[in-house]
Amino acid sequence: MTSIALAEWLQLWLDTDSDQPAYHQLYLLFRKAILTGKLPPDSRLPASRLLAKDLGIARNTIIQVYEQLALEGYVHATTGKGTFVADVSQDSIEDGPAGETAASPNVAPYPSLSQRGVRLVHRLGFSNRQQGAFMSGVPDISEFPFKTWQRIQNKRWRNQPEDLLGYAPAGGYEPLRHAISAYVNSARSVNSSARQVIITTGIHQGVDVITRLLTEPGDLVWIEEPSYWGLRNLLLSSGLRVKGIAVDAEGLNPDPQQMKHPPKLIVITPSHQYPLGMVMSLSRRRMLLEYAHQHGCWIVEDDYDSEFRFGSRPLQSLQGLDEWGRVLYAGSFSKMMYPGLRTGYLVVPVPLADHFANAVAELYREGRLMTQANLAEFLAEGYLSSHVRRVRNLYASRRQCLIHAIQRRYGNSLEIIGDDAGLHLVLGLPDGVDDMAIAHMALQRGIIVRPLSDYYLDGRQAKKGLLLGFGCVSEEQINAAFPTLGEVIDAALAKIS
Amino acid sequence: MTSIALAEWLQLWLDTDSDQPAYHQLYLLFRKAILTGKLPPDSRLPASRLLAKDLGIARNTIIQVYEQLALEGYVHATTGKGTFVADVSQDSIEDGPAGETAASPNVAPYPSLSQRGVRLVHRLGFSNRQQGAFMSGVPDISEFPFKTWQRIQNKRWRNQPEDLLGYAPAGGYEPLRHAISAYVNSARSVNSSARQVIITTGIHQGVDVITRLLTEPGDLVWIEEPSYWGLRNLLLSSGLRVKGIAVDAEGLNPDPQQMKHPPKLIVITPSHQYPLGMVMSLSRRRMLLEYAHQHGCWIVEDDYDSEFRFGSRPLQSLQGLDEWGRVLYAGSFSKMMYPGLRTGYLVVPVPLADHFANAVAELYREGRLMTQANLAEFLAEGYLSSHVRRVRNLYASRRQCLIHAIQRRYGNSLEIIGDDAGLHLVLGLPDGVDDMAIAHMALQRGIIVRPLSDYYLDGRQAKKGLLLGFGCVSEEQINAAFPTLGEVIDAALAKIS
Repeated sequence: MTSIALAEWLQLWLDTDSDQPAYHQLYLLFRKAILTGKLPPDSRLPASRLLAKDLGIARNTIIQVYEQLALEGYVHATTGKGTFVADVSQDSIEDGPAGETAASPNVAPYPSLSQRGVRLVHRLGFSNRQQGAFMSGVPDISEFPFKTWQRIQNKRWRNQPEDLLGYAPAGGYEPLRHAISAYVNSARSVNSSARQVIITTGIHQGVDVITRLLTEPGDLVWIEEPSYWGLRNLLLSSGLRVKGIAVDAEGLNPDPQQMKHPPKLIVITPSHQYPLGMVMSLSRRRMLLEYAHQHGCWIVEDDYDSEFRFGSRPLQSLQGLDEWGRVLYAGSFSKMMYPGLRTGYLVVPVPLADHFANAVAELYREGRLMTQANLAEFLAEGYLSSHVRRVRNLYASRRQCLIHAIQRRYGNSLEIIGDDAGLHLVLGLPDGVDDMAIAHMALQRGIIVRPLSDYYLDGRQAKKGLLLGFGCVSEEQINAAFPTLGEVIDAALAKIS
Repeated sequence: MTSIALAEWLQLWLDTDSDQPAYHQLYLLFRKAILTGKLPPDSRLPASRLLAKDLGIARNTIIQVYEQLALEGYVHATTGKGTFVADVSQDSIEDGPAGETAASPNVAPYPSLSQRGVRLVHRLGFSNRQQGAFMSGVPDISEFPFKTWQRIQNKRWRNQPEDLLGYAPAGGYEPLRHAISAYVNSARSVNSSARQVIITTGIHQGVDVITRLLTEPGDLVWIEEPSYWGLRNLLLSSGLRVKGIAVDAEGLNPDPQQMKHPPKLIVITPSHQYPLGMVMSLSRRRMLLEYAHQHGCWIVEDDYDSEFRFGSRPLQSLQGLDEWGRVLYAGSFSKMMYPGLRTGYLVVPVPLADHFANAVAELYREGRLMTQANLAEFLAEGYLSSHVRRVRNLYASRRQCLIHAIQRRYGNSLEIIGDDAGLHLVLGLPDGVDDMAIAHMALQRGIIVRPLSDYYLDGRQAKKGLLLGFGCVSEEQINAAFPTLGEVIDAALAKIS
């Protein structure tokens, strides 16, 4: 290996962002090069001055590394000639160096993500920030009844509950399945028995097991346009053909041409369209159920925040209307409790129940029965209902506060999209506005907003707007932050006028 | 809808295993049939006697349901003529009944799992039982230092740690990534910085994100033959072409014909082949690394129980020998702590590190930072190391105890496969023996063993044997259970002699 090739190899592997000092990394890299024959016996190490320059690090570091290697017998220095690799083949490793392997011109390029991998990492939706105005999709965690939860938790740990520390049985912790069945039957008019309830880590895992049991790679899936980026990316990454279907005031609205090609899956948010907030009409629900029944489609009903309706009673679930077992109902405790809990559920038709229970156990090897047991008690004792009742009022006030802040500045000139529900609203913007640029500018001033464009599979179809979360934002924060956001919006509006 | 069609529909949906009484289920089903037009106004309900016979339930239950429906106005009874559906279209629902939709002969068959779904549910490996002789793959949970763990946990909960209850940042909880990097570098000679460590829920999730970032559906994957059923089924369910490659005394041993078709992924257990227990030789390791480098394959190193070597020091990891960044190293705390914890990690090459961190956050929307923070402290404070040291001795004794029990009965006539490590050994059986039948018979006598055949992708290649776990089985249990198992084995041996 020439000095140049060695320097390139070291550059590839030296991680200057690492918490490991460069000295230690270099030492390990040289040792590896020597032990594996990349640097064969008697080859000469590059001059410390040149290598320091190539790697952009202090020459002293290189000298220290060479000295350490000499001390341990990996190299020997000959005054006036340089530093040479020792023959370590007999001492250190069984088989001796494998010889030079680096220079082959036929080697595959590196790194090489798959096509679906590239698509995924180039269109990420998640954010590491989760606090502050106007973060959407996150509840106010500070309102969570910590003490109650801790008391429930401690009671179980004190009993050294070995049976709750193993892998989960098929379907999850039985008492939690019962508690969830009772909850969704009463709160959401779902028609379920405990056997139909499958505990998951959330909607992502729920959709994943659905695709694995009910679709093949390459199958067609309908999602709403716009919709939640997380599920869109999961479905794309699963090798499915994902088609965005427009929504109107009544919800998902496939055109006749689209209906000629029935999909295998239809993923929808009928109670509260995400992110626009409309409720799917009864006639549209019936049409979809009938269509799914006729064509053997499966409908995934993501009932992601139906607990937070402020004005009206929640509508009953689509699942409760389904007479042919085409609906898979998905819920989660992320927004009612706290996101990090990672506990959700599927309610699946009776004939599929055992298959789903078994598949989750097999595919994900789940555990966390302790959390499931604590949650079962939290539900059964009514703590969840009373917590939800309390924060529902809080969120309703914050929504009003945000609407007032918007109207104080804009009157009715910008549309407020979304019904009286949920943890966010959408502030509509005129067509020519670059909502992504606004989000970017706002972030530089410490304000988080999501551009509505991000929620479209096909950016050319995108309506412009901003998702403004109010669930985790106090009224003080709302009133303090909105004027700043308004300045950013006004600057963008000025550009197109 | 005729009475016969109605009875069939009710049979399809009536779940007699349910915790919901048949009365309540039937009531809901009738109401749904009426509200959705399946039973149109003025149609006659079947005679209670006939329906009771068709459904196999008490006639009285049917009568009660009819009475409840009459009370609520859904039906009306006419003496001597029967019970008829009322016209509820205007009162109860917006759009009126959609009319008869059930009888179409063009409806897709139900239920219909996908091909990969059928394959999955017909070849499940997991078991709901996890206690007792000779359960394999499970540590002794009763030895876990509950009090220490609870103390660490409580300290955090008392501080109402809102920042630990949200979604996880890319890659996971930073201090845990540092702690794991330090741990694997020192204990397993892995070459990593914290940035390369990606927190997962375990090996299943690790392999899933690898397939999504580095493969396309239809790509070829090599697994060991035999190997862990869970990953095999996950890979098959991901739409990959999975090829079993024979192992010999030196580990994975692809033949020249197989090597002509380089796979995209190679999933191996070089430190302790699962389930046979051999260690991959250094020359085989070098050959595989070189092959992967030349052909752009990725190697998944599943280092699933390297902490439990009883006689010798653990070998260094394959990752530590990898100079070209082709190895993705996967570990888990399931066997060191307890399985239900569901926390593991990947160590990925530097150029892939951020992509993997982002992909996990995007695909699974992880959380559980509280658990990750507790675990980071458990590692950093040395509790994990001292716990592992302690149970290592315990498991070593149990292994000896099991070997003595085997040898007392069989001398050296049955082979004991596996090196001095891990939580199970394999008791070899002669070729003609039906190891699945033995497992089945043993279970009827309360003893859990896994047939070695189950671990083969291609059953025709299968060596016969039994996996006997000793990790969670006390010496008393071993000595009590083995003679019973011996009787079952002897009966099977007698059949082929």
